[in-house]
Amino acid sequence: MIFMAGSSHEFQSVVWEAASFDSAAMIEAELINVLEDSQGAVRDICLHILNAGGKRVRPLLVWHSGLMFGPDSHDLKRTAVAVELIHMASLIHDDIIDGSELRRNRPTVQKQWGNHRAVLGGDYLFAKAFGVLADSGLIKPLGIMVRAIQDMCQGEILQDGDQFNSRVSLERYYDRITKKTAVLLEASCKAGALVSGATELQAASIGLFGLNLGLAFQIIDDILDLCGDESKMGKPKYTDLIKGNLTLPIILLMQEPQYQGWLMEKFNEENLNQRVLAKIEAAVKDSGVAERAFAVGVSHLEEARHRLKSFVESPARQFLENLTYMLQARAN
Amino acid sequence: MIFMAGSSHEFQSVVWEAASFDSAAMIEAELINVLEDSQGAVRDICLHILNAGGKRVRPLLVWHSGLMFGPDSHDLKRTAVAVELIHMASLIHDDIIDGSELRRNRPTVQKQWGNHRAVLGGDYLFAKAFGVLADSGLIKPLGIMVRAIQDMCQGEILQDGDQFNSRVSLERYYDRITKKTAVLLEASCKAGALVSGATELQAASIGLFGLNLGLAFQIIDDILDLCGDESKMGKPKYTDLIKGNLTLPIILLMQEPQYQGWLMEKFNEENLNQRVLAKIEAAVKDSGVAERAFAVGVSHLEEARHRLKSFVESPARQFLENLTYMLQARAN
Repeated sequence: MIFMAGSSHEFQSVVWEAASFDSAAMIEAELINVLEDSQGAVRDICLHILNAGGKRVRPLLVWHSGLMFGPDSHDLKRTAVAVELIHMASLIHDDIIDGSELRRNRPTVQKQWGNHRAVLGGDYLFAKAFGVLADSGLIKPLGIMVRAIQDMCQGEILQDGDQFNSRVSLERYYDRITKKTAVLLEASCKAGALVSGATELQAASIGLFGLNLGLAFQIIDDILDLCGDESKMGKPKYTDLIKGNLTLPIILLMQEPQYQGWLMEKFNEENLNQRVLAKIEAAVKDSGVAERAFAVGVSHLEEARHRLKSFVESPARQFLENLTYMLQARAN
Repeated sequence: MIFMAGSSHEFQSVVWEAASFDSAAMIEAELINVLEDSQGAVRDICLHILNAGGKRVRPLLVWHSGLMFGPDSHDLKRTAVAVELIHMASLIHDDIIDGSELRRNRPTVQKQWGNHRAVLGGDYLFAKAFGVLADSGLIKPLGIMVRAIQDMCQGEILQDGDQFNSRVSLERYYDRITKKTAVLLEASCKAGALVSGATELQAASIGLFGLNLGLAFQIIDDILDLCGDESKMGKPKYTDLIKGNLTLPIILLMQEPQYQGWLMEKFNEENLNQRVLAKIEAAVKDSGVAERAFAVGVSHLEEARHRLKSFVESPARQFLENLTYMLQARAN
């Protein structure tokens, strides 16, 4: 990749591993624990998605946002686990929506078990998440999660309606990635903080950290989908463009007079072949649009770090700050 | 239809209309109110499923179960609405699972908007339901609903696994219809009662009323799917058999020596044509199995009425009792 980042990916991974080891292991154990009572095919689906791994970013956001305002607690752990269950449910349903066959190099739930069971498996995990919160009387996090899910649904449908719409504006793109990705990260930080006794104002502020982290995450993901190294990604490239989802690099490229007409023409044909896709990737790189899009992502990471500055230093704050640098290094 | 019932369908409809008019109108207004803030395609989907109508049995169960133990209240109304939202969400997802194209003579959500939006529309309504409960701090009903949804998911997947399995036992059928249908009716009654101050024991008892009502409802629905009058049903006949879901009349018919071998043979072929389906319907009627299955349904209605007897007489109790007679008359 062409991007420069603050530090190497390897170094950041080590930081991540060290800082998150204890809490990640604890979250993993609790996830297994709450899914213990599922049965039959539901159980198989839950274990499939659980064992697919993932960095557990959302529960770690809950956990460390919480630790910034109070000691660790059972309620904080339950909130962290609930958020990951919601994320897992939304992954299963997203894969139905996108018709994806692979996730992290393994078959998706709907590929392996069919649409039917994928719908139900997702519903089960959503219910489980709310059950975890309800059983602990965690009504505030519950309200926050509910609103995040509603936004996520609206965001996915928004994306659906925008396909191959070459007039998609930057504003509309932001609305889409906010709802699709950033709101759940915002919700994770807010919920963790509130459970640990933060004021509404503090929770809103740490929520903005999560929101900006989420925007950066999605922007970088969108760049990688176009310009990334397929062998490292565990999923095929160009999925956004093939489905007609116009992301930041494409929107920026459309603003370049020399590419505008050509792109419009290709999108009107709708069926983009691999040769055209590779040409678009080359244009995004050659025009400098890739770097500009990456800079936009980084600006959100800077905003996220700025939000952290208003809180006293602590290992938890340091963990969240490290997270922003890790993400910045992801494009390397 | 061949069945006798306690009173004519027309009479019972009048009773229903009179007893439920005020509360049904109130529930309808509140449903519209809570869906007010949805946008775009999500809004269209919500309104489509809302306007498809339905008898609003579940919210009316919440409402009248609640009124048996206390005055009407905002919390009771919110609980009633949340249950209907859960029911609406599950209808949307069920229609994806079943690949149904019609519901109540109108196109299903996935027929009109596609699988993608149907998944998201259902998720949105689930989240909305939990939001309604969380916003009012109704943590007990929330826990009850969560467990009902988990059971519903497990039940649907159970059904999925049993298709064309001619060894499906009565026990397994009961497990399936309990989870698929009866648990949400049980949950409705329990939640309404608890919100209005019933003891856990009282709530469990009125819950058993709902459970038996639900079992009877599903058994009668299963009989009608096989022996009903298509023009009255608003959906095609034989859907269970075509999908390989063996229901009570079929399980009873399998126990008749003269039909057993013939049925096994047909199920092994899996692809049942209309001629075979009509022959199975005739066999169910001629053998007396239809009446026996109906009698099983009625026995659950009697058990439901028995549960009501332990509570003092009230208009709410009368409403719930009327409901059992209405259902009994449904087969007429």
